Amino acid sequence: MDEIKIFAPATVANISCGFDVLGCCLDAIGDEMIIRKSPAKGVKITKIIGENLPLETDKNVAGVAALALLDKLNFNENFGFEIEIYKNIKPGSGVGSSAASAAGVVFAINELLGKPFTKLELIEFAREGERLACGSPIADNVAPAIFGGFTLVKSTNPLKIIELPTLKGLYATIIHPQIEIKTEDSRSILPSKIELSEAVKQWANLGSLVHALHTNDYNLFSESLTDYIVEPYRSKLIPDFDKVKNNALQAGALGCGISGSGPSIFTFSKDKQIAKNVSVAISEVYKKIDVPFHIYITKINTQGIKIL
Amino acid sequence: MDEIKIFAPATVANISCGFDVLGCCLDAIGDEMIIRKSPAKGVKITKIIGENLPLETDKNVAGVAALALLDKLNFNENFGFEIEIYKNIKPGSGVGSSAASAAGVVFAINELLGKPFTKLELIEFAREGERLACGSPIADNVAPAIFGGFTLVKSTNPLKIIELPTLKGLYATIIHPQIEIKTEDSRSILPSKIELSEAVKQWANLGSLVHALHTNDYNLFSESLTDYIVEPYRSKLIPDFDKVKNNALQAGALGCGISGSGPSIFTFSKDKQIAKNVSVAISEVYKKIDVPFHIYITKINTQGIKIL
Repeated sequence: MDEIKIFAPATVANISCGFDVLGCCLDAIGDEMIIRKSPAKGVKITKIIGENLPLETDKNVAGVAALALLDKLNFNENFGFEIEIYKNIKPGSGVGSSAASAAGVVFAINELLGKPFTKLELIEFAREGERLACGSPIADNVAPAIFGGFTLVKSTNPLKIIELPTLKGLYATIIHPQIEIKTEDSRSILPSKIELSEAVKQWANLGSLVHALHTNDYNLFSESLTDYIVEPYRSKLIPDFDKVKNNALQAGALGCGISGSGPSIFTFSKDKQIAKNVSVAISEVYKKIDVPFHIYITKINTQGIKIL
Repeated sequence: MDEIKIFAPATVANISCGFDVLGCCLDAIGDEMIIRKSPAKGVKITKIIGENLPLETDKNVAGVAALALLDKLNFNENFGFEIEIYKNIKPGSGVGSSAASAAGVVFAINELLGKPFTKLELIEFAREGERLACGSPIADNVAPAIFGGFTLVKSTNPLKIIELPTLKGLYATIIHPQIEIKTEDSRSILPSKIELSEAVKQWANLGSLVHALHTNDYNLFSESLTDYIVEPYRSKLIPDFDKVKNNALQAGALGCGISGSGPSIFTFSKDKQIAKNVSVAISEVYKKIDVPFHIYITKINTQGIKIL
């Protein structure tokens, strides 16, 4: 195989009680990428359609992730790789745009080379893209992008990822208000210290949520989707967050929270019709205050990156 | 049925990453209780063998729990209840002594009355005993005493308890150094605020531990039994805690931590032989420094309170 075309999915990280550890993979939002072997050595990004992102290999998250993989192999064949990126995920939207590019390229090169690496190793390389994008080799978006479904980052050093079961038939509705939140703002707004009593409630919910996924318990899943720690701070950066959340829950959503560090807001629903109802209910909030937005209704993607 | 004899088990709360929420039920340590209908109305504690505890109903955790149950029923039959307690669990040892008495009595009276209440309701009554014992209606010992196995207190208001699966064949070795830790010391030594970054590691571990119980994964269970938050503080109150822990892990224990608020230390092992090896290894620590201790090797009790 000399060329591969893939779908690199968007992902939701920081799912309510799972700040920094719990993510899931989406199905109807994602980039397409074509990666092919080329006579020229090295990694070259030949095309980026849809967004204005750097073509220089060492300034692009996909390029950096690809180099991390090839470095590990001490790659010295008489060919290289060309990358084309068809970007559908908006950078800075909070649904893992950089993770999709980084995870996608390492998945694709691994396929072209006959799968020398495990999925866990691919996550290690993709994290180097995340390090470029946000200064830290976070894994909570690249893990669900590569494994699919719900994932838990048990630890980052050493990297240990747990693949969790997914509730049957679960849908997400994602709304992306077109505002910019600076990464430094979404970080600096968080306190470095939190109340122990609040932390206890948070970890009780995360334990319950893992149990809910294993037992396919929609009610418990819903009851566990509360974020006592981060949402009270970061929600202030998102216009009318409380109204969106309230409308989502009124329309039947199982839960609602900030996707990644925002501004996108995720909601989960137990079937497609409810996900559509939620879409209508939360769109109204931003229509009313004239905030432009994108909205997506999607299954949970249990496969992760797909070969097209 | 006019009389019932039960085994009221000891329990481990605050299991490592599950401070305030995760507990489990033990099999080889526990009290025996006899509860019988009596011609005299009300609740009377007629006998306590083994420990010097108050016989007055309203000053005894079992008495208070029994009254909470009867109050809820607006109980007004022409009989009452007598309670005999054969106490084997040392009060203040950290393995749920008060919880065993409180849970045992409400379980027994519920049986004598034809089971008007669910197990969850029984936990509500037993918590009133805990309120008397420690000032707060904690549920993390009474829940495993009544349900058996591993339990997660998802929330206390409203009370929601999750029954988790138990690893097959799991054993605990519990060592109780005969020292007194004042409840106020074990509380006041904890900070009210903790680092967010440490809390993230704690909830990642609790999520992983729940996953490990569902997948019968001993390695992951072991890797998840780390307490970043509470153990660094409370372990200072227990002589040579670090040596005990180190010896336990060297002898093959899956994990080791402070039971409840101490001074007992729990360890888990994947079979009885390892649990015995651990027992020898940790006993040596206290023999060397002449701290008197009790030690117990026990299966995890998946049934909870037992009718004898």
